[in-house]
Amino acid sequence: MINTNCQILHNSSDRILMGHGGGGRLTRQLIEEVFYPAFGNPLLAQSHDGCVFDVEEGYKLAVTTDSFVVSPVFFPGGDIGHLAVNGSVNDLACCGARPLYLTAGFILEEGLPVDTLRKVVASMRRAAGMAGVRIIAGDTKVVERGRCDALYINTTGIGLVPPGVRIAPERAREGDVVICSGPIGAHGVAVMSERESLGFSTSLRSDTAPLNHLTACLLEGGLKAEVHVMRDPTRGGVATALNEIALAASVHIALEEDSLPIPEAVTAAADMLGLDPLYIANEGILLVILPGECAAEALGIMRGRPEGREAAVIGRVEAGRPSVRIRTPFGGSRVVDMPMGEQLPRIC
Amino acid sequence: MINTNCQILHNSSDRILMGHGGGGRLTRQLIEEVFYPAFGNPLLAQSHDGCVFDVEEGYKLAVTTDSFVVSPVFFPGGDIGHLAVNGSVNDLACCGARPLYLTAGFILEEGLPVDTLRKVVASMRRAAGMAGVRIIAGDTKVVERGRCDALYINTTGIGLVPPGVRIAPERAREGDVVICSGPIGAHGVAVMSERESLGFSTSLRSDTAPLNHLTACLLEGGLKAEVHVMRDPTRGGVATALNEIALAASVHIALEEDSLPIPEAVTAAADMLGLDPLYIANEGILLVILPGECAAEALGIMRGRPEGREAAVIGRVEAGRPSVRIRTPFGGSRVVDMPMGEQLPRIC
Repeated sequence: MINTNCQILHNSSDRILMGHGGGGRLTRQLIEEVFYPAFGNPLLAQSHDGCVFDVEEGYKLAVTTDSFVVSPVFFPGGDIGHLAVNGSVNDLACCGARPLYLTAGFILEEGLPVDTLRKVVASMRRAAGMAGVRIIAGDTKVVERGRCDALYINTTGIGLVPPGVRIAPERAREGDVVICSGPIGAHGVAVMSERESLGFSTSLRSDTAPLNHLTACLLEGGLKAEVHVMRDPTRGGVATALNEIALAASVHIALEEDSLPIPEAVTAAADMLGLDPLYIANEGILLVILPGECAAEALGIMRGRPEGREAAVIGRVEAGRPSVRIRTPFGGSRVVDMPMGEQLPRIC
Repeated sequence: MINTNCQILHNSSDRILMGHGGGGRLTRQLIEEVFYPAFGNPLLAQSHDGCVFDVEEGYKLAVTTDSFVVSPVFFPGGDIGHLAVNGSVNDLACCGARPLYLTAGFILEEGLPVDTLRKVVASMRRAAGMAGVRIIAGDTKVVERGRCDALYINTTGIGLVPPGVRIAPERAREGDVVICSGPIGAHGVAVMSERESLGFSTSLRSDTAPLNHLTACLLEGGLKAEVHVMRDPTRGGVATALNEIALAASVHIALEEDSLPIPEAVTAAADMLGLDPLYIANEGILLVILPGECAAEALGIMRGRPEGREAAVIGRVEAGRPSVRIRTPFGGSRVVDMPMGEQLPRIC
């Protein structure tokens, strides 16, 4: 009744079978042949129901969770695996935490080529290496064909917040500036260009990248107490991130249209798709809010790293009704509202 | 371009829209109307990218992750929400940890009735209350109709392991006994009975329950150093759990057929479905492996709690090739092998 024929084990490596999610030999084989070789580390090798580790004294723990359902799975500049690692790494970094560990929960569609899974897992390994985090626990479920779209990944990140760091959206206040670390809109446009139904191409690549080295430089470079807010503007883009901060801190945020780092290729694609670049998802840029008098120092630190090379002040925090507004070079202005939903679904 | 018409907000409460996963107003509305009221606590209310908290000195941290894709979502005795909480709580408990926090990642199918989500979330709240854990971070994604089966949930659990506790599958050793806390097979059969295609009914209800109070009683009741292994035999059932332990510890495990607590209703359903109860998933029973001389004390402690009332010794750990065998009352025996995949897919 339980098939233990070894032929099946050896022939099963080309497609995901329902049995790969069953917790038996096939699951074990997947773990041993795909996940352990990619993620292997002593904590993961505990091979228990969970993973146990020490915490440095005096540190607070930061935890974040995110599921990734991006479609298509591979796109210019990245893939779902890269996003799944960087997404949780960046959420931790934006809490002021040093990311340490990730868990990875896979939901696989029956029939998924195991090679696709291998590629995604290899990409997660590379991204984890770049960010300096380890994957310490995992889980795999398989659902029937048509009950998933290739694969979905949940990552939960755990990091340590050093003493004295207190980053929170409600800390934004009048007199602060808003710094953006790099060009806006590349990720969303790169993913859309891979959707066959849209029939357009672009030279843009996703900006997916870990931000924790950049945030660490800022916090360890003497601005630990000065950085009020850090945020990676993913789903919903810069507009949504800043609206959330304005609401949390009860402040007004004024952006200067001229200073927004929107690449021409993003503007062109956004025009064609009827989108506003400010609402397009990014996966590798950082918004930093801190007192105006610290702006020059922060820009100096950020521009010293490749991922912050193009850092610039894009706006200011002012007293006023919680809202976000863009000032045009001609003296006009327009409200940048919180979007209802998503311009581009399944972008991360 | 971004629709901010309030009518849409107010009329959107009956079905999940793609926009509910977009990180904008609809996502916010879902969080504020569905998730916060159910899970509200000061850590969750940090409303940041992640959640930051202190860790007691001297404790180790335990982390576990699990995705839940059970079909159907509601079944006799439980639902996906209950499973999602208890699954991670029990994995932590089986590491000897005191479960503290859960993260919750939802993947929702477009068109899912919001009422279904509310019911699941309410069930998670009740389960979290029973287990004494808090949900401290969450994430929601929405995928198009037909790219999910109603909803999938990932939970990642974080707990504290008290000093002196060291529970691990490789600690099973010759002379240990295997205790099972209660009846085997109810969960899997209860879920199957709800699958219309199978056309059978049963009086059985899922055994889904938190095990952390039971494990705490054992560890705090004087057996902290004696308990070698604890395991909740979910996917793959008792057979898979014991095979994994036999392999990790390089021991043989001998079960006594007579002592296996298999309810008649499970045997009847298993016969009809062509299944072996030992491979059927359980969600509320605990296997404990500890030295034979501690068995009476452990049974006394376990039987003092409702979820351990029927605790009994079901087998012994012996020297020998890593394997599991059942001895019949007539002197015969048969190997209980590791299953290839899953007898019953999507059972958790």
